[in-house]
Amino acid sequence: MRIGIVAPSTPILAGTAERVTAIAAAHYPDAELVFHPQCFLSHRHFAGEDKVRADAFVEVANDPAFDALWFARGGYGSCRIAEDVLARLGPAARDKAYLGYSDAGYMLAGLYRAGFPHLAHGPMPNDLRRDGGDCAVARALSWLTRRDPAALEPSLAAIPAAAFNVTVFSQLLGTALEPELGGHVLMLEDVSEHMYRTDRALFHITGNAGVRKVAGIRLGRCSEIPDNDPDFGASEEEVFRYWCDRSGIPYLGRADIGHDAANKVVPFGGS
Amino acid sequence: MRIGIVAPSTPILAGTAERVTAIAAAHYPDAELVFHPQCFLSHRHFAGEDKVRADAFVEVANDPAFDALWFARGGYGSCRIAEDVLARLGPAARDKAYLGYSDAGYMLAGLYRAGFPHLAHGPMPNDLRRDGGDCAVARALSWLTRRDPAALEPSLAAIPAAAFNVTVFSQLLGTALEPELGGHVLMLEDVSEHMYRTDRALFHITGNAGVRKVAGIRLGRCSEIPDNDPDFGASEEEVFRYWCDRSGIPYLGRADIGHDAANKVVPFGGS
Repeated sequence: MRIGIVAPSTPILAGTAERVTAIAAAHYPDAELVFHPQCFLSHRHFAGEDKVRADAFVEVANDPAFDALWFARGGYGSCRIAEDVLARLGPAARDKAYLGYSDAGYMLAGLYRAGFPHLAHGPMPNDLRRDGGDCAVARALSWLTRRDPAALEPSLAAIPAAAFNVTVFSQLLGTALEPELGGHVLMLEDVSEHMYRTDRALFHITGNAGVRKVAGIRLGRCSEIPDNDPDFGASEEEVFRYWCDRSGIPYLGRADIGHDAANKVVPFGGS
Repeated sequence: MRIGIVAPSTPILAGTAERVTAIAAAHYPDAELVFHPQCFLSHRHFAGEDKVRADAFVEVANDPAFDALWFARGGYGSCRIAEDVLARLGPAARDKAYLGYSDAGYMLAGLYRAGFPHLAHGPMPNDLRRDGGDCAVARALSWLTRRDPAALEPSLAAIPAAAFNVTVFSQLLGTALEPELGGHVLMLEDVSEHMYRTDRALFHITGNAGVRKVAGIRLGRCSEIPDNDPDFGASEEEVFRYWCDRSGIPYLGRADIGHDAANKVVPFGGS
């Protein structure tokens, strides 16, 4: 199978792509990885200008020769191009799988809203740079190439699910990218946010009428939390329980996702 | 006139209250400032527990002996108590003026949504601690005591207006606090946010169907912007113009508001 890799947010290094390609060649010989040259471009904050990133995404998504589109990494930037990209996707784009997380969540949300059937929250090529990152890359490839059940977030059941970064999800609510998640288990993880910001984002998220229709919320890992001054005095689990309780959304426990090498795959809508 | 001061977010120092009281006594002898003891409490991140902050706000707001409620300072915390407070406000609460900004925006938004007629975005007692902060405090008192036109944001005209912090406004959209701002000039300022975060918040704000009904957006000051790595490559004005242009919201220019001593008063709905 052919997997096209694009970077709708920020760029990756060529060396990272080479190492990911080597892992695929050694352990997933049926996977041909094609890193679009756009992955290595740099324009200000982004992996190329908005139009360049959008064009690369559309080119790979609309090419029937690719079986999957893999997001190279997160960062920031996909919200700037998502609506343009979505308007330009053709039939071949619906047939392929899409895998990514963090900033890729804007695009996954918009694709899910548009009814794309094969979307998943999970590791990306640039996760190779994390401690144990080769396991994250292998997990992604095992899902992309053969839908390996061992790659999946373990709480997944018959009930549909979706997973997002807290901040990304907060910022797409009410926009043209907001997906319909009624009846879904909503898994949320976060990184590099002060606890008061996570608390504030949960006010925003759980105060949303659409979100209140979810079957429940699961908490992934919140990592690299900067010190709060003064100490916020509540853990991320206490924050999530507080806002779920206030809003009447069932708190369903933890989810095995996060900005780390252990990040499991959450197919949108069901495994 | 009697002005009650409460702190629905974070606490102030007793010394700040004393200095603000001295300014009022010297220059606004018709103003009696009453700092509620809750202003000086500290519980974790907040000026007292949620219930304590809510009770203090309700006590002052519902007391007909007060002509105005002045928010002591911003920080974080009023979104946690706003809905509880709003449900407990009686007729006397509608007769008084409310002045504050930053985190106070959650409360001002909810009060505006509830039809309270005398709300304004403007300086708070804790602004005394800024360079030139005595001018900010004096400006607030001149508006509270005699609606001094010199205190007002200079672009204000017959068209109704409202003003918020970018991040606060972003996080109250879609919640029970979201005000109806169709036909308003929306003024937005921000502080201590990376430019990519301001860009992201503008995606969220200008992507909202309700916000697209405003008459236009004015940009206040964005201060203490942490360095973006790499450089974001666009100023706050370029960011605002970009998102206004994309969303079809008129960009109306700058507004004389911000997290600084020059922060002018913006009465909600009209001057």
